[in-house]
Amino acid sequence: MSLAEARDDASAGADIGAEMAAIGRAAKEAARRLANATTKEKNAALKAMAAAIRGNEEKILAENALDVTDAREAKTADAFVDRLTLDAGRVEAMATGIEEIAALPDPIGTVLAEWDRPNGLHIERVRTPLGVIGIIYESRPNVTADAGALCVKAGNAAILRGGSDSFRTSAAIHACLVEGLEAAGLPKEAIQIVPTRERIAVGYMLSGLSGAIDVIVPRGGKSLVARVQNEARVPVFAHLEGICHIYVDRDADLDMAREIVVNAKMRRPGICGAVETLLVDGKVADTHLKPLIVALKEAGCMVRGDEQSRAVVPGVTPAAESDWSTEYLDAIISVKVVDGIRAAIDHIEHYGSHHTDAIITDDKAAAERFMSRVDSAIVLHNASTQFADGGEFGMGAEIGIATGKMHARGPVGVEQLTSFKYRVRGSGQVRA
Amino acid sequence: MSLAEARDDASAGADIGAEMAAIGRAAKEAARRLANATTKEKNAALKAMAAAIRGNEEKILAENALDVTDAREAKTADAFVDRLTLDAGRVEAMATGIEEIAALPDPIGTVLAEWDRPNGLHIERVRTPLGVIGIIYESRPNVTADAGALCVKAGNAAILRGGSDSFRTSAAIHACLVEGLEAAGLPKEAIQIVPTRERIAVGYMLSGLSGAIDVIVPRGGKSLVARVQNEARVPVFAHLEGICHIYVDRDADLDMAREIVVNAKMRRPGICGAVETLLVDGKVADTHLKPLIVALKEAGCMVRGDEQSRAVVPGVTPAAESDWSTEYLDAIISVKVVDGIRAAIDHIEHYGSHHTDAIITDDKAAAERFMSRVDSAIVLHNASTQFADGGEFGMGAEIGIATGKMHARGPVGVEQLTSFKYRVRGSGQVRA
Repeated sequence: MSLAEARDDASAGADIGAEMAAIGRAAKEAARRLANATTKEKNAALKAMAAAIRGNEEKILAENALDVTDAREAKTADAFVDRLTLDAGRVEAMATGIEEIAALPDPIGTVLAEWDRPNGLHIERVRTPLGVIGIIYESRPNVTADAGALCVKAGNAAILRGGSDSFRTSAAIHACLVEGLEAAGLPKEAIQIVPTRERIAVGYMLSGLSGAIDVIVPRGGKSLVARVQNEARVPVFAHLEGICHIYVDRDADLDMAREIVVNAKMRRPGICGAVETLLVDGKVADTHLKPLIVALKEAGCMVRGDEQSRAVVPGVTPAAESDWSTEYLDAIISVKVVDGIRAAIDHIEHYGSHHTDAIITDDKAAAERFMSRVDSAIVLHNASTQFADGGEFGMGAEIGIATGKMHARGPVGVEQLTSFKYRVRGSGQVRA
Repeated sequence: MSLAEARDDASAGADIGAEMAAIGRAAKEAARRLANATTKEKNAALKAMAAAIRGNEEKILAENALDVTDAREAKTADAFVDRLTLDAGRVEAMATGIEEIAALPDPIGTVLAEWDRPNGLHIERVRTPLGVIGIIYESRPNVTADAGALCVKAGNAAILRGGSDSFRTSAAIHACLVEGLEAAGLPKEAIQIVPTRERIAVGYMLSGLSGAIDVIVPRGGKSLVARVQNEARVPVFAHLEGICHIYVDRDADLDMAREIVVNAKMRRPGICGAVETLLVDGKVADTHLKPLIVALKEAGCMVRGDEQSRAVVPGVTPAAESDWSTEYLDAIISVKVVDGIRAAIDHIEHYGSHHTDAIITDDKAAAERFMSRVDSAIVLHNASTQFADGGEFGMGAEIGIATGKMHARGPVGVEQLTSFKYRVRGSGQVRA
């Protein structure tokens, strides 16, 4: 870079810094208004957003076509282009998604607990919005709609930063969200989108915009999430990866184990709740291991096994140490024979990512022990790990799944985007 | 510093780094055990801690006397020395405090919510420990006992870093906590104390000890809290300051207002819940302002007023702009006449610290508006701000008050030192 270029770059950075600071201030101001918006206002805005998306389908698809052409010309991977590409069905799904969010109960104002004190004070813990949510995502255009709508439902302002490859598409969708906000008399700054592809804008968001951003939610691949987790100066709701396990216990029903394991891996191998490692109790290795591996292979899954499992089922590819901490996100599974439930729990605590782990067993005590000792956001007994999803939990749309233990853990839906405060009602009480 | 000294210092840093890392690992291991300790085990440990503190009163007082002598020789301020100094009564209060924590309900394992899904899955959200809590505090020896006991009750491991002036006292108290843990068969690493006065140890804690520390709680003055908030790479439960307000509305009962305002300021002016700014509705400035100021002055409080209040009550010291954002922690109050509830809320949102704010009014609608719009951890109607305290809330002992909106807000008691996870029970369900 020449000196002149460096100077240009630095001054662009300063300009973007000033622009981002203004976005932060506007978001904070809008959040104050949103926090006191009625359920009716928020739902009216959401319904108007859905209508605007339907009404602007042509425009959205046209902008998307430009993004897709650029991505193709840049020789972007097919899977990436597929995620980026919209069609009429995907646009309609966005609109429907927003309407589903409108139909959810409004979490704000809910009294979470209330009690009386001997001195007559009445104390309530009541749900409030979090404030301003920053969402940093890759080129999935639907996140613009989902995330914006979820934040508004919970009374928050949103600052969206989409992938640069979906820049035009996101802007077109964002315009529809703003149309909805304005139709309902809510400030358009309640959902803002970062108006530049410059990477430095992400850095400003991670700094929290001088306290304007209360929490950051990254949506995307491991490198994006890792950057956000490492650099953010504000709380982050995220999971870096989903290294999910199924432990097939000595008291597991083989048919059930087979069905669950194949589903947990192969239904959609690329989601974070897909199982990556199968642990089989040594006590049933002789009876259960082979049928499980055969079923996985028949379903098209590659199997990598430890020494013990390869002794029982010859021909299995050897697993390396790194396999136990790999999230394949693909039709690959690692398999290990373990010496009972304690060894299974130790393996999961050592190699897992505290996302979602399951035990298959008919022994209720073993199930309770597993579910109590495995320190993951979601622990399941006799069910597929692919249920790790806000919708499947009945929590409605989710903005992601968090593996941290602070505030939000597991599916991050509309309730998880809230805080709370204490309302205390007295009749003149003073403290003795 | 000479080169040799610098080398010594750097190598001391490296040694402390290795020591702190070992403390982190041990805490994480102990936390796994604590997470699965029974209520009986935890309470047995707490009761044994209280007994050990009583049994070692002489030793604790002897170590404390050495700390106090050093502090006096270093010409430390009297208030500081007073906080540092123990006597038989204060030692007994520590033991009683731990017994009160033992008597609290065990939060771990509580089912916070449960529901069934149409596919037959049963989902529970259940309380779990947070993991490892780092507590950084100034020279109040009782925090060693309080914080250690609260963490254990919630199934967490604690890493304590006390003020260097109370180093010997804290070590003596810590020995009693360890005695209690061991008597109950729990690992002594569940409560560790940083075994050095070196300041660099705090830096290591703020870095999170390679992911070992889940949350940091600072207890102390503004400069300590500010350092922790600025430098911590892990979540922090804290309040930087309590700039608390009372708004006396046009429909306030004067007698009630007078009693509450004097109590909120003068009962204990140095606590974070003490009121710092009195806002009086212009509509009742003529009737209410003078009696309020007179009552405050009679109680020994200095009053600093804005122009309007000085016009009504001549002789009041003028308030500077900086007064509105000053936490006096002393018998001083700032007074301002505001143009109704809206202006009061705007003032509080602009200058406040989101800690505790109160409205005095007989108008229920005004009270609801105030309590809904003021974005503070605690909002009160017709009661003193000095009730901002976990004990007064009926939540038992607290480790502090948090003004952040993440996870813990308001008093941080035993329940706020927990996380949760989802337990899902099925009968072979796979995802379609």
